[in-house]
Amino acid sequence: MIKDLIKQMTLEEKAGLCSGADYWHTKAVERLGIPAVMVTDGPHGLRKQEGEADHLGLNQSVAAVCFSPACASASSFDENLLHLMGRALGEECRSENIAILLGPAVNIKRSPLCGRNFEYFSEDPYLTGKLSSAQIKGIQEWEVGTSLKHYAVNNQETCRMTCSSEVDERTLREIYLAGFEMAVKEARPWTVMSSYNKLNGEYASENKKLLTDILREDWGFQGFVMSDWGAVNDRIKSLEAGLELEMPSSSGIRDEQIVKAVREGLLPEELLDLAVERLLKVIFKYSQADVTDMQYDREKHHKIATDIAKESAVLLKNEGALPLSRQTKVAYIGAFARIPRYQGGGSSHIHASRVTNALDTGRNKNPNIIYAEGFPHDKDQEDQSLFEEAVKAASEADAAIIFAGLPESFDSEGIDRRHMRLPECQNRMIELIAGVQKNAIVVLHNGSAVEMPWADKVNAILEMFLAGEGVGEATDALLYADANPCGRLAETFPIRLEDTPSYLNFPGDGKKAVYSEGIYIGYRYYEAKKIPVLFPFGHGLSYTEFSYKDIQLTRGNFTEGESISVTAQITNSGKMAGKEVVQLYVGDRTGTPGRPVKELKGFAKIELKPGETKPVSFEIDARSLSWYNEEIGDWYAAGGTYDILLAHSSADIRLWEKVEFTPVKKIPFRVDENTTIGSLLKNPKTSPIMSMMFSKFSGGITSGFGSSDEVLNEMTGGLPLRALFGFSKITEDQMKELIYVLKKQLE
Amino acid sequence: MIKDLIKQMTLEEKAGLCSGADYWHTKAVERLGIPAVMVTDGPHGLRKQEGEADHLGLNQSVAAVCFSPACASASSFDENLLHLMGRALGEECRSENIAILLGPAVNIKRSPLCGRNFEYFSEDPYLTGKLSSAQIKGIQEWEVGTSLKHYAVNNQETCRMTCSSEVDERTLREIYLAGFEMAVKEARPWTVMSSYNKLNGEYASENKKLLTDILREDWGFQGFVMSDWGAVNDRIKSLEAGLELEMPSSSGIRDEQIVKAVREGLLPEELLDLAVERLLKVIFKYSQADVTDMQYDREKHHKIATDIAKESAVLLKNEGALPLSRQTKVAYIGAFARIPRYQGGGSSHIHASRVTNALDTGRNKNPNIIYAEGFPHDKDQEDQSLFEEAVKAASEADAAIIFAGLPESFDSEGIDRRHMRLPECQNRMIELIAGVQKNAIVVLHNGSAVEMPWADKVNAILEMFLAGEGVGEATDALLYADANPCGRLAETFPIRLEDTPSYLNFPGDGKKAVYSEGIYIGYRYYEAKKIPVLFPFGHGLSYTEFSYKDIQLTRGNFTEGESISVTAQITNSGKMAGKEVVQLYVGDRTGTPGRPVKELKGFAKIELKPGETKPVSFEIDARSLSWYNEEIGDWYAAGGTYDILLAHSSADIRLWEKVEFTPVKKIPFRVDENTTIGSLLKNPKTSPIMSMMFSKFSGGITSGFGSSDEVLNEMTGGLPLRALFGFSKITEDQMKELIYVLKKQLE
Repeated sequence: MIKDLIKQMTLEEKAGLCSGADYWHTKAVERLGIPAVMVTDGPHGLRKQEGEADHLGLNQSVAAVCFSPACASASSFDENLLHLMGRALGEECRSENIAILLGPAVNIKRSPLCGRNFEYFSEDPYLTGKLSSAQIKGIQEWEVGTSLKHYAVNNQETCRMTCSSEVDERTLREIYLAGFEMAVKEARPWTVMSSYNKLNGEYASENKKLLTDILREDWGFQGFVMSDWGAVNDRIKSLEAGLELEMPSSSGIRDEQIVKAVREGLLPEELLDLAVERLLKVIFKYSQADVTDMQYDREKHHKIATDIAKESAVLLKNEGALPLSRQTKVAYIGAFARIPRYQGGGSSHIHASRVTNALDTGRNKNPNIIYAEGFPHDKDQEDQSLFEEAVKAASEADAAIIFAGLPESFDSEGIDRRHMRLPECQNRMIELIAGVQKNAIVVLHNGSAVEMPWADKVNAILEMFLAGEGVGEATDALLYADANPCGRLAETFPIRLEDTPSYLNFPGDGKKAVYSEGIYIGYRYYEAKKIPVLFPFGHGLSYTEFSYKDIQLTRGNFTEGESISVTAQITNSGKMAGKEVVQLYVGDRTGTPGRPVKELKGFAKIELKPGETKPVSFEIDARSLSWYNEEIGDWYAAGGTYDILLAHSSADIRLWEKVEFTPVKKIPFRVDENTTIGSLLKNPKTSPIMSMMFSKFSGGITSGFGSSDEVLNEMTGGLPLRALFGFSKITEDQMKELIYVLKKQLE
Repeated sequence: MIKDLIKQMTLEEKAGLCSGADYWHTKAVERLGIPAVMVTDGPHGLRKQEGEADHLGLNQSVAAVCFSPACASASSFDENLLHLMGRALGEECRSENIAILLGPAVNIKRSPLCGRNFEYFSEDPYLTGKLSSAQIKGIQEWEVGTSLKHYAVNNQETCRMTCSSEVDERTLREIYLAGFEMAVKEARPWTVMSSYNKLNGEYASENKKLLTDILREDWGFQGFVMSDWGAVNDRIKSLEAGLELEMPSSSGIRDEQIVKAVREGLLPEELLDLAVERLLKVIFKYSQADVTDMQYDREKHHKIATDIAKESAVLLKNEGALPLSRQTKVAYIGAFARIPRYQGGGSSHIHASRVTNALDTGRNKNPNIIYAEGFPHDKDQEDQSLFEEAVKAASEADAAIIFAGLPESFDSEGIDRRHMRLPECQNRMIELIAGVQKNAIVVLHNGSAVEMPWADKVNAILEMFLAGEGVGEATDALLYADANPCGRLAETFPIRLEDTPSYLNFPGDGKKAVYSEGIYIGYRYYEAKKIPVLFPFGHGLSYTEFSYKDIQLTRGNFTEGESISVTAQITNSGKMAGKEVVQLYVGDRTGTPGRPVKELKGFAKIELKPGETKPVSFEIDARSLSWYNEEIGDWYAAGGTYDILLAHSSADIRLWEKVEFTPVKKIPFRVDENTTIGSLLKNPKTSPIMSMMFSKFSGGITSGFGSSDEVLNEMTGGLPLRALFGFSKITEDQMKELIYVLKKQLE
């Protein structure tokens, strides 16, 4: 039916469908019953602009519920929660007649400085992939589309529209694409959004390898690709590469270019038809869905947003000051107590219907709260009298909470942070309060990691991240144990900026950003280099305790195509109901060079009453052990032993087992004059022949070496066959025969 | 005359000249009076093999003087000393009828683990270039050739014959080639030796860019290139690339290949003629030199070797135990006291004529020396009774010296170290001795940095490196203040292996070694990442003290083609005559991204009596400030401020000045649809037009942004012109006009 429709469309109509009608709508073709549909930012709430629209700006949009940005929601480590959030967002889209919500954003947090980290999930692609998949599924259950973005390797804001991310193939696949891959395969997003940047010199928006070879052919993507707003460079090239929808409108300029290219034979019309077919499939999927008109319950969604915030906050440190009692005299310090940061700047900025703050929420239940502003919420400014008032309040109370965080301009699309510090006035204030109040508690509002020079001096640290509009109620519930903290860090908190893996190359020279740290991002780097961190990946405390026992593997060895189950028993050994996030890490012990110490390959969040025990279960397969092997252009795990670790955090391994793996895939072994003697002696098929030939020809090499056997073996093992020309009396014909015989053995 | 000779040579004779007659000789053409000449390892003494020869082995060679390997001699920071050593080596060559000494080896110490680091000078290319130049000049003053090696980027032994060093162009030029460049330009070595490895996928021995474009065309090299022993892969390709001499003999196989290639028209005969011309020039330069027969004085050279060892040792730490008095009761512990390490394993291994040890030397002058073996010199083996004896000896003496170091198999060609530790028995012994003796002194014999977990616990550490055959006398003189320590670290001593810049990529996967740390090698890395080190680059103590004053620059600003002088006054403010190494570092403060904190660009060693003051003077020019800019394919220094630092070590800056630089070279500025608005507003020529046009077209971008001015400026500045299609009402014609007008401004 869609194919019939395309036949009826004029060339101009087809070209027109390949870019927006305006900022937010596709073009309708009314005579053929093709409706215009609306897309909107995204990702954690609706920024639906009516009237004069703009891309990144803040023409007031329709009031909507601001859920937790991904910096917070990812810290839930909870697929069900992300699914719930997706369901709520999908319902809002249906209520507001939105066909596609622009998100989720699954770029990897390469550096804490990326201004847009608050919209991204994690430094880990597995966690990113699992959580974004859950969100996509939740949204799309309403027959509303998502746009998985920003595809790909868009990990900084600096020069984002022209800079080239330079990444080797293995790193690309293992780190920067793996989250996209999982989301595409598991959740089937209706659309993917190409990013602004270049990848290895070619714009993502016209990168056929990205948009077609990998996305559609490798991963089986069935939807359409749209550009980030203004990301198209060469429209014809982008269409050929697999980008169907340019956004926003180009005022007709691109439509003319496409028409001209087809007329001049530079662009095959079949390719345009294919693009239109992909577009129409999605447009009709939305417009013809069997969903009745509806109106979502904003108050109910506000409560969902609040619950997500509660489940996502991370209790980083607690030496006993938390939880507070409602009778405690508490000093609330810092303007964030009244005016919390709960979202970031830029295109994801929501006109939130209702925002709660911790101060008002707390005062409703605890009459003993004193408030002192201390410092402003939006700038780094020290006011002596405000400082003194705050210190006085803190010293007179039984506990003091400093509500700290980054001003909004630090967590914003379009600009990267220049450093990893909080405003200096806040660091000073915290030090002062810690000096007068032993129960000093810091509550943080920030979109990515910050340095905490005062971490050793305060009693407790509660990381709220940017928690959405329910931030105040969530903070209040966690501080007073109406909720039990159960979030975990989805990104490492390093001690100082210089420790970060991309420090020497972020954000590059304006033309290139060289990803020279390779796969060693986040905990993969800190663990491999044994660099101490402030708080490790996966870390998070609770008001109760959990114990682990009985790790079991269904089998001790497996191969490709098979999977094994890993189970264990988890007990709440404390006195309060709570949730534990069990993390499964895999470590390669086969001796393969260039592998991280371990990698996250499973996680499960379970709720336990005091004293209760529940099993957790994980599945792992060959992919869980694998790395991307450029030589064979495929995922590969070497044969040998792998550690299977069940952990409370990346730095707190509770249970350990090992498993043996036997690969089916083969790494090709070629024999020519540059094959080394060592590799021929190591290969069981060539070893017998080689040993024989070697003893015949190696006289000239080893005579009188005088070195130790170890040095000698290493040195001769490293010789390529051709070295025998110089070091022995082998002739050319003998060499040819040797290579022929060795090849025979390998057949 | 050489050209006439070539005309008389047969094709077979010409081809034959392009590879060795055997392991060590070129082929003679007796009918034309072309002599065979002999080459020999190198680099710090003669390994002249007579009779049955072999490459790396140890068929006993002719007895010779073993001078300090470069790990030690480089620590002298003394060009005069290296020149002196070169003179002695040249004289020995003349005495032994050696035409070319195979060295010096100027590869950069990328990792402390490289087994051949003991033969290399430094982690810094400037120091490497200056010192190797001095050595080359000294040798070649005897009309004996050198072979600058291993060209290039051969920084590991693992898989050295097949592995590809993957390096970006800037890193290649700034770090890995700069030492070769300086040596070629300043010292004009007669030959260069190509290395075993591949560079970015192509064997160095057949890499035209390396052997011709850079070496001859950029640097003006006039000699010939020989292969490392067995390094040739494709003989025809290597000849075309600029490799004239293959070593060793290929038993005629390659001669035939060359003849065949010429006959079949695959190799132009003119190219072979050119190679032969280059070879004959060097052969005749040696054989026809006006040098009479001679015999060097071995005892005199032994004394030179001993002096070099004295000047090269580095006093790493001294809390007062040193110097010792000849009356002190001292326990000498460790087999190295009797059997010192003084050279490394492999092709540089000298049949040393006479080796002195510290124990016998010391006992001749101090009767109060007790010796306890403690641990063996050649392996990691703990013997309880030897341990107990050593601890008893140490506890009964007034001071204890532990002679520690690496077994020879740890510092050897052909194999890299697996870790950076001393043998565990030695670390244990040192800890035990430090527990019973407050004057615990460690003397080290090692070819590259080692971890010292006990560094805080011992009183003094004297690093001898591998000091050549005079090691015992030199150690003795330094311990008892017959000589004043004046060496400086030519390589950083990191705290632990994980801290090293190439840790995650060394030695690679067997096929590639990716140099992803780029230019950040050695102190450039530790300083940029603020990683604490055990002992910094340039560090070294003395028995006296030096003070610095009066830094003066001849001018406060300069440009390309000019140079400025930096002078200061240095005073020996202590009580003993001594030598100070003044180091000049330059720091780029222009805001150019990706530059090290500072780089060594000058050093001077001066001798001062107690109370004496002498001036030091340095010249710096544009190159001193420059980095290799790939965009223009040239060295470039941005306009702006540079720090000029005079320092006792890289971590001990004594005097600071700054200088302004104005470049003549221009970085091209291109205007097209991808030029960013920010760069156009920043360029003074395009700024007025752009401001005007921008205010006309930017309405759609900025309306209602709501973000801070900083975010707004950053975001709009990052937009390429093409983004105006989507974000404003600009037409294609207007865009063309805008670009035309902007280009006009730049003409």
